[in-house]
Amino acid sequence: MAGIDASRLSLNTATVREQWSLAECIDGCARHGIGALSPWRDKLHEMGTTAAARAIRDAGLGVSGLCRGGWYTEDGSLTQKVKDDNRRAVDEAAEIGAACLVMVVGGLPKGSKDLPAAQALVEEGLADTLDYARTVGVPVAIEPLHPMYAGDRACVSTTRQALDICDRLGDGIGVALDVYHVWWDFELAKQIERAGRERLLAFHICDWLVPTKDLLLDRGMMGDGVIDIAHVRGLVEAQGFDGYVEVEIFSGDNWWTRDADEVLATMIDRAKDC
Amino acid sequence: MAGIDASRLSLNTATVREQWSLAECIDGCARHGIGALSPWRDKLHEMGTTAAARAIRDAGLGVSGLCRGGWYTEDGSLTQKVKDDNRRAVDEAAEIGAACLVMVVGGLPKGSKDLPAAQALVEEGLADTLDYARTVGVPVAIEPLHPMYAGDRACVSTTRQALDICDRLGDGIGVALDVYHVWWDFELAKQIERAGRERLLAFHICDWLVPTKDLLLDRGMMGDGVIDIAHVRGLVEAQGFDGYVEVEIFSGDNWWTRDADEVLATMIDRAKDC
Repeated sequence: MAGIDASRLSLNTATVREQWSLAECIDGCARHGIGALSPWRDKLHEMGTTAAARAIRDAGLGVSGLCRGGWYTEDGSLTQKVKDDNRRAVDEAAEIGAACLVMVVGGLPKGSKDLPAAQALVEEGLADTLDYARTVGVPVAIEPLHPMYAGDRACVSTTRQALDICDRLGDGIGVALDVYHVWWDFELAKQIERAGRERLLAFHICDWLVPTKDLLLDRGMMGDGVIDIAHVRGLVEAQGFDGYVEVEIFSGDNWWTRDADEVLATMIDRAKDC
Repeated sequence: MAGIDASRLSLNTATVREQWSLAECIDGCARHGIGALSPWRDKLHEMGTTAAARAIRDAGLGVSGLCRGGWYTEDGSLTQKVKDDNRRAVDEAAEIGAACLVMVVGGLPKGSKDLPAAQALVEEGLADTLDYARTVGVPVAIEPLHPMYAGDRACVSTTRQALDICDRLGDGIGVALDVYHVWWDFELAKQIERAGRERLLAFHICDWLVPTKDLLLDRGMMGDGVIDIAHVRGLVEAQGFDGYVEVEIFSGDNWWTRDADEVLATMIDRAKDC
């Protein structure tokens, strides 16, 4: 299997979060021949959604997703504030032409230990956002997060769990698979097949370092860890996935401290072996 | 549901690894009215297996398990050395009257990214150990480890995965469930029911701290984190599990730095609410 060409890569803005604004990311992608990007909402709001949409279009870039909606458990119940914020995220995704809205669903509410209740709350929230997203035509992508984030970030932890939710909620919702979160799963191949082309809405890459020194900010550049990225890419592409391959690296002590152009050049180089 | 009485608790020696030898653990359990312990093999070897067996018996303590066999992937293939070491672990478990031999199966072999191959190697190793363990009458307990250890410690990451292996290998093998490793799993209740009484061989408790500062050495004392321990205990007891509830806490900066008697007193106190 041939590696990934720069034109098929997408830069998740988190990868150079500490170095670049969204405007700089847009310029950087264009300069390096990277085909797409995926902004986080804070960067999008800084630039202004309309201005960003125009600049992305003018640069000829794709948008592999908008990060992120979700966080339904924030207030302990599904408040209007949370619902409204997610509907705004749908609108923003539509305005920038994002392939999907990526959902980090939220962990346990503060003070709670009731995981099933949190999961029910999340599903209620997803259903609400999906109702609206269908009217706008924005696909909703549940991102199962690594189980080490179940407490504080996402109580949807596996591809199976995410697809069970998709089965119940129907059309317009699928999954965003990040190798970092799902590589360890013995039934990943089976669940990717179950997802199928229509529900594989985004594919993110980076690497799992051994040892990993921090639960949040020690993701590795492709090739520096133990994930067989090419294998997982083969699984999603066998289902017909032909979207951008998005690079999302949270790296407090390493990649966030480097020159952003070096980060992009390294991404492109390493993707050739993925 | 009433909490756990000291007489139903077991002290995993890792909880006071930095403070006490096995002999001191045996005395400590007797002094605090803790019903059982579960030694790690390094502590057992320090004391000598025969001497330890006698001291444990003399103190009237139960043995909820021996930690640990496994680590099948250490040499990259299933070597005689690894097989022999596991058979020795079975003998040691038998000699001290352990309820089971707890298996930490091993992660990816050094330099490998092939998780399915590692998993196949582990299953081959478990089958070999089980062949022998059946002749001695020692139950083999697969401990699914948290997915964050898939790279370097255990490529069996979920209860479902462990039970699939048990299904294939037959009698004499089951699971050791540690709430730390499995609490996040949306299908935990279903898999515990699937395991049933015969395959629930050990039950370990501690807590998941938010935030968790270290992947290995930042486990929490019961009550300090977000795991609904009483709920999980209810699930295993609903299947008829009536073994000891084992406390295993790796805590480099906190519990390992305290007076061991204080640690045991705290365990006993906190278990009343579990």
